[in-house]
Amino acid sequence: MDERLKKQMEFALEIDKEKNIFRQTHLSNHGRNENDAEHAWHMAVMAYLLREYSNEKIDIARVMIMCLIHDLVEIDAGDTYAYDESAKETQKAREEAAKNRIFSLLPEDQASEMKAIFEEFEEFQTPESKFAHAMDNLQPLMLNNSNGGSDWKGHNVSVKQVYARQRQTQKGSEILFELTDRLIKENIAKGSLTE
Amino acid sequence: MDERLKKQMEFALEIDKEKNIFRQTHLSNHGRNENDAEHAWHMAVMAYLLREYSNEKIDIARVMIMCLIHDLVEIDAGDTYAYDESAKETQKAREEAAKNRIFSLLPEDQASEMKAIFEEFEEFQTPESKFAHAMDNLQPLMLNNSNGGSDWKGHNVSVKQVYARQRQTQKGSEILFELTDRLIKENIAKGSLTE
Repeated sequence: MDERLKKQMEFALEIDKEKNIFRQTHLSNHGRNENDAEHAWHMAVMAYLLREYSNEKIDIARVMIMCLIHDLVEIDAGDTYAYDESAKETQKAREEAAKNRIFSLLPEDQASEMKAIFEEFEEFQTPESKFAHAMDNLQPLMLNNSNGGSDWKGHNVSVKQVYARQRQTQKGSEILFELTDRLIKENIAKGSLTE
Repeated sequence: MDERLKKQMEFALEIDKEKNIFRQTHLSNHGRNENDAEHAWHMAVMAYLLREYSNEKIDIARVMIMCLIHDLVEIDAGDTYAYDESAKETQKAREEAAKNRIFSLLPEDQASEMKAIFEEFEEFQTPESKFAHAMDNLQPLMLNNSNGGSDWKGHNVSVKQVYARQRQTQKGSEILFELTDRLIKENIAKGSLTE
């Protein structure tokens, strides 16, 4: 087989492992924990359908591939729960090593391209990155809200913690942050979040 | 909430159910059965990375959204194994009803858009549809091959059946069909397929 295609297929097989990285979020109807591949799929579909709400003009193909690959580093680094402060301290170093190993399976030009897309997501500066982050927040919020806020209850998450993360949605979409804010307030009223 | 956004979010929550639709394909390293959301995610990433092998010029955003939504009808219609001839007889009718129910949760313009993308995939005529079908074939072939062809063995799939399906990859990509052909021949040599 051609060396280039061989590398691409090795990478394609390697990323199958993302389906075994489970998150703290549960599927709707009080289902099992969600995995990273499912989360990425859901984010990309939502990005496509909700793109009209982006604050800025976006390249939707770039947002979709960004959503699809943003958690690949967790194959090595594991999932870091958004509200686990001690795990978040070591997250950067774990994910940096993972990024280098995993994307380097690809031919050099594609390794650079995919690392750049991943870094663009992390740096949170471009319109595409801001909208992808809005999806990374809204998708689990939607599932958790559909389950009566049980993921937050299970981890004693506070109002302050939720807003520290979810407020970032505003950078990508004012309208989706209005929705977010309403959902959080409903969960506060129901007692899903600690003060 | 605005009626339009409400509908979009209802659809977004409904499609969470695709994560509970399990396929006959097993994850690499002899893992569990794969579900439709994982399969769609994997196809879309592969489409992006392998787009250079498309026979014809393609709009990659359209290929990706096509990959991501092509199995949503299975939320109602269930998964039909590619080599289950009796289930395939009723597949069209089951999927037609599902298409109408599921996409109609969206605002009218988006319902039409998503139905059109789904139908384009099914009709298998455009360059984007042909390349998406190549991914729909190559992704499970890759996983099954990594597991020594155990999915084929488990269902006594024949060489003829595999070629009837996998030959279609050629319409989307001559180069990826060469790879496909090589993988099938290796599996014939290993006895994974019946004559």
